[in-house]
Amino acid sequence: MQFDNEKVTCLKRKDNSNKGSIDPDIRNLVDLINSLEDYYTTSSCSGRIVIIELIEKKKDTKFIFVEHNKAKFNSIKSSLKTMRLNQVDGGGREDGNIESKEANPKTKNNLWFKQESLILHVCCRDLKSAEELLSIVRNSGIKRAGIISLRNRIIIEIIGTEHMETLIAKDGNLLVDDKFLKVLIAEANKKLERNKRNVDKLYLELKKKFEYPSSGFTT
Amino acid sequence: MQFDNEKVTCLKRKDNSNKGSIDPDIRNLVDLINSLEDYYTTSSCSGRIVIIELIEKKKDTKFIFVEHNKAKFNSIKSSLKTMRLNQVDGGGREDGNIESKEANPKTKNNLWFKQESLILHVCCRDLKSAEELLSIVRNSGIKRAGIISLRNRIIIEIIGTEHMETLIAKDGNLLVDDKFLKVLIAEANKKLERNKRNVDKLYLELKKKFEYPSSGFTT
Repeated sequence: MQFDNEKVTCLKRKDNSNKGSIDPDIRNLVDLINSLEDYYTTSSCSGRIVIIELIEKKKDTKFIFVEHNKAKFNSIKSSLKTMRLNQVDGGGREDGNIESKEANPKTKNNLWFKQESLILHVCCRDLKSAEELLSIVRNSGIKRAGIISLRNRIIIEIIGTEHMETLIAKDGNLLVDDKFLKVLIAEANKKLERNKRNVDKLYLELKKKFEYPSSGFTT
Repeated sequence: MQFDNEKVTCLKRKDNSNKGSIDPDIRNLVDLINSLEDYYTTSSCSGRIVIIELIEKKKDTKFIFVEHNKAKFNSIKSSLKTMRLNQVDGGGREDGNIESKEANPKTKNNLWFKQESLILHVCCRDLKSAEELLSIVRNSGIKRAGIISLRNRIIIEIIGTEHMETLIAKDGNLLVDDKFLKVLIAEANKKLERNKRNVDKLYLELKKKFEYPSSGFTT
């Protein structure tokens, strides 16, 4: 009963994520999981492309750009423009430390370009259902899934392995030119696409398992 | 008894990793875990900086460079030279697709620069000991740890969150100049350092827990 009560409470609760809603690309999967008797999701992200400012002193981050679908070069370029960074080839020392020059950068913190994969937290009724979900996830081709909590609730974390993460600005200087930025974006979009195919595969594996539990597909 | 027998067999087994030995930076941690009654390690890597060639057709990868300690610019540059890539600024089209030029690249596959974090697999005697290890890992500041297998053996996967991953060559063209490469290497080295501090913290947490289980440090 405890699991059922918690499930009801959790699914009723207001979405406290930054975005405030479930990503459309993972919506079907989340709904399917929540329709199953032994599971419910506690958080989800379908994967995204972001640029973050890393504020090391405060151990904090600030989003400069966020996109859950394919990122466009022009949108990223516009976001970067608001930071007023020194452009690439703006002078550099041989030791790899780039000196700040004439421009008036809005930040001297590092900027990172990241493509993050799907992440999903699923609460399971008991160990048996957790074990079953782990095996279904693995069959779907998603390699990284594990039980991260056992004590109060049994929670499985599912993470895709498609990701990218690179520094693109340091000390107020942009490190990448348009050409490289375009290649980075194209690769990140490709990885995001593969990541979404994994979401779909997991959805299908779950449907197969729970809609036709014993004898495979019926006609 | 089954756990104890498997532990003996596993620890006797030949090291089948590419490297063929345990990384010195994680050796103490691995030895400590294996000295505990309820745990043994099945694989470990202390973290590393690599350049890999991604052979998409074969879904295979080839290591161009591997370093478990701080990477040096000259060593990476030497490894890249063996690939005979077209240099950056060798001409590019406006659509972001870079055209191949005069040089004779050894590969047209993509090359990725990666800094990977520690990864450790630990087999646990039972759920109680697994739960305990999960909590110790979390206390040490390592965020990603989960039980990935329950069926035959209970195995916890522990992964650091310090990592980098970016494309540096495409279609036989190097995408990064020396200046950017130096910045990338410096950041990767910094992250590797932080990652090793996490290994040390985990070691200390385990020691604290199992050597002085009830009353903290004795004098």
